[in-house]
Amino acid sequence: MYKLYDFLPSGNSYKVRLLLNLLNIDYERIDVNILNQETRTPEFLAKNPNGRIPLLEIASGKFIVESNAILYYLSQGTKYFPQDKYAQAQVMQWLFFEQYSHEPFIATARYWIAILKQPEKNPEQLKYKHRLGNAALKVMEQHLSSHNYFVGETYTIADISLYAYTHVADEGGFDLKKYPLIIAWLKRIKEHPQHILISDRGK
Amino acid sequence: MYKLYDFLPSGNSYKVRLLLNLLNIDYERIDVNILNQETRTPEFLAKNPNGRIPLLEIASGKFIVESNAILYYLSQGTKYFPQDKYAQAQVMQWLFFEQYSHEPFIATARYWIAILKQPEKNPEQLKYKHRLGNAALKVMEQHLSSHNYFVGETYTIADISLYAYTHVADEGGFDLKKYPLIIAWLKRIKEHPQHILISDRGK
Repeated sequence: MYKLYDFLPSGNSYKVRLLLNLLNIDYERIDVNILNQETRTPEFLAKNPNGRIPLLEIASGKFIVESNAILYYLSQGTKYFPQDKYAQAQVMQWLFFEQYSHEPFIATARYWIAILKQPEKNPEQLKYKHRLGNAALKVMEQHLSSHNYFVGETYTIADISLYAYTHVADEGGFDLKKYPLIIAWLKRIKEHPQHILISDRGK
Repeated sequence: MYKLYDFLPSGNSYKVRLLLNLLNIDYERIDVNILNQETRTPEFLAKNPNGRIPLLEIASGKFIVESNAILYYLSQGTKYFPQDKYAQAQVMQWLFFEQYSHEPFIATARYWIAILKQPEKNPEQLKYKHRLGNAALKVMEQHLSSHNYFVGETYTIADISLYAYTHVADEGGFDLKKYPLIIAWLKRIKEHPQHILISDRGK
């Protein structure tokens, strides 16, 4: 059985938990508290030298790290990854957009404010995170003006990846009311009958 | 014929130019000077609302952005992308490592120092970039202690992606002499008979 090394409040971990649940895949969840440096122990670094969760153990000693790489692995051959080659490239482009232009700003602002509870520590940096995070949300809002989902008008791992931190962006001080198309898309994702919440451990 | 919207000093652009040359694919190269805000014109933003190069136009009005997504697209069915599903996931994990834990520090330090020529502008931020960039280089050095390439002992797009900014890390103030296994790997990549330099426009 898959083992997911998971930190419940992490949007990156949630992506994997959500897809595993959508695919009805059983897994064992192992809590790793990043606030206690549990990703920096020799045992954990032997599994991921980059010291980050989520980490999926697919067989004894066979690990996959990087949330979007895990989504890619799990979605192959399922309806959450398209068949068409150009559509596949578009999924990839949104996954890289998420990790480069979205997560470092939206997730980090939430981490400082809602998890570390230290919004005042880096006021200049927080302003910068809000500026670039809003730029990413604008790109998403514009895309959703002519699409219901991010690629090919069906729910793919591009949506899962972007959903993870967008749906809790308000916890990082982002005002989602400025993005009505994003709000409608979040609702669409949440309506999936097998949807789970970020705080839900899954099965 | 493919059209590559390209900025010659950009490592992200170089990844695509290098793979196109390794694959003997003809393309038209279109210079986009990011220093003159040429990625922020209405014409360019209509192609990529996120306003970044490289951008590959594969047919009239069909665009792919995000350097690693373009590498993925071009490498499908070639020897630069493995067949095995776990090896594919490992390629993905290095591509996301590159964009999240490597490029934002190593490429940005080089951009400030060697391209904008303003190393003194953000001394505290530059120190931070050097700390995290060196952490990424250490992860690579450790991996290379038991591998010749990043995945499956052959040259894949994971190597291309990591090569792009690692081989010019010294321009960002990184001391590669501290990483002898990386130096040996860079040499291995450069020895490919169809290798091109970052300053080379290709065919």
